[in-house]
Amino acid sequence: MKLIRFGEKGKEKPGIEINGERFDLSSVARDYDEHFFANDGIASIKKAVEGNISGFPKVAGDTRLGAPIARPSKIVCIGLNYADHAKETGATPPSEPVIFLKSSTAMVGPFDNIVIPKDSVKTDWEVELAVVIGKEASYVEEANALEYVAGYALHNDVSEREFQLERGGTWDKGKGCDTFAPIGPWLVTADEVKDVNNLRLWLNVNGKKMQDGNTSNFIFNIPHVIAYVSRFMTLLPGDVISTGTPAGVGLGFNPPVYLKPGDVVELGIDGLGESKQTCVAYAKN
Amino acid sequence: MKLIRFGEKGKEKPGIEINGERFDLSSVARDYDEHFFANDGIASIKKAVEGNISGFPKVAGDTRLGAPIARPSKIVCIGLNYADHAKETGATPPSEPVIFLKSSTAMVGPFDNIVIPKDSVKTDWEVELAVVIGKEASYVEEANALEYVAGYALHNDVSEREFQLERGGTWDKGKGCDTFAPIGPWLVTADEVKDVNNLRLWLNVNGKKMQDGNTSNFIFNIPHVIAYVSRFMTLLPGDVISTGTPAGVGLGFNPPVYLKPGDVVELGIDGLGESKQTCVAYAKN
Repeated sequence: MKLIRFGEKGKEKPGIEINGERFDLSSVARDYDEHFFANDGIASIKKAVEGNISGFPKVAGDTRLGAPIARPSKIVCIGLNYADHAKETGATPPSEPVIFLKSSTAMVGPFDNIVIPKDSVKTDWEVELAVVIGKEASYVEEANALEYVAGYALHNDVSEREFQLERGGTWDKGKGCDTFAPIGPWLVTADEVKDVNNLRLWLNVNGKKMQDGNTSNFIFNIPHVIAYVSRFMTLLPGDVISTGTPAGVGLGFNPPVYLKPGDVVELGIDGLGESKQTCVAYAKN
Repeated sequence: MKLIRFGEKGKEKPGIEINGERFDLSSVARDYDEHFFANDGIASIKKAVEGNISGFPKVAGDTRLGAPIARPSKIVCIGLNYADHAKETGATPPSEPVIFLKSSTAMVGPFDNIVIPKDSVKTDWEVELAVVIGKEASYVEEANALEYVAGYALHNDVSEREFQLERGGTWDKGKGCDTFAPIGPWLVTADEVKDVNNLRLWLNVNGKKMQDGNTSNFIFNIPHVIAYVSRFMTLLPGDVISTGTPAGVGLGFNPPVYLKPGDVVELGIDGLGESKQTCVAYAKN
């Protein structure tokens, strides 16, 4: 299934997309949140819609999409998880996964604007495959790790390189700005993704291809990453692990290239859909 | 007011402590969470209890205390914010605040056990003053920053130094293990703390004084830290900023001293109460 959340920001309702049509499932699910995943919500929805999708209200095609999951307890990101990206940033490929956290307040919908923060001069893009956790995971074995996955989604791990790398402290400072986590269009349930470690992912800026990779080039594949993270923190249902980006980010160009107001970023992953964000300057509400 | 949460882990109810007696406020507040702080919950409670505290059920003295706030959207920590602590870790005092994030799944009550993670050999203590945010804060000015504070609490920012410093990536790996954030006993509302930048804080291990500092020695004081963090991520009502630890952590000893099963950690901050944790080895449930 392709789960969506639609409607005004902060008031999104749960829904589903089937053959390009969208349906409102708010009569059978409150939201795609920790409670939903922890209580077998995916199975409940499947049962509710099977042979009965016409019983649910349609969602108008121009309705805004939010991120396909509610705000999670955390967004864990894996850094430098493609050798070509590690190389372009001048980093040595890591001997074990690099972990950082992204403030969940950064989450927005797949077609929302990216707001370039005040005083930012190095806002950059990163197409990534995000794993959504389906049940509580602590000290999980790699062999069973995929049992803990609810599904997968497209994620633009937007990053401010000066904040991340030149302002002291950890990377977290440049990763959690508002709008820095467009997720979606869909949460594609795990049963519909045949081999998550072999999907093409790409990103264009203003129509020009910047990133074009494949998850088969992960340094640490998804079962490894889930098991690894679960040794350092408990993952809750609905939590996100974003699995790193391939080569082609703005920081890797010589000289580097960064986003400016008016730039349009489009990205996609095989089977997980496409998203598109327009960059705008920060303006006080 | 001194807000508490009491009861079984994961099912805590909101309450209040007055002159050493505890009362159940679950009839007037659902929980001390984002919704509570965003909707002037502190003022509502104040009104409800004023002159009427005997109308609320008493909480038995031996009831477990949880952290005094519900799981926040994020716990932001400030690293190396006391010059003496920066020196003991061999770090140069930072020229601007160091930010990292702590997984909120680490939160536990003030008298709960600290679980030393599997394969951990360097679990360490850090007494800290935690700020609880009262209203949404983005690009806040330092001059107004204290208006965004709901209150303050005692926090032990438990840290695994090998995970934090020797395993690649950011500090986050050693900060978010389960039980690594005992908070409380109370959330002391901001109106009851006269000068938050001048409070003594201390920590004992097995009765021996290890840390004995004062928040007057902050490199970056609380209004500065709130304003600073709010430039990199939006702070939501109920979010926590933990403001750093003074000298005397285990890492700073020569040779370093780390926690082992059976060790007892006691800590306190003037006006914010005391807490006590016993260390236990990790055991699979």
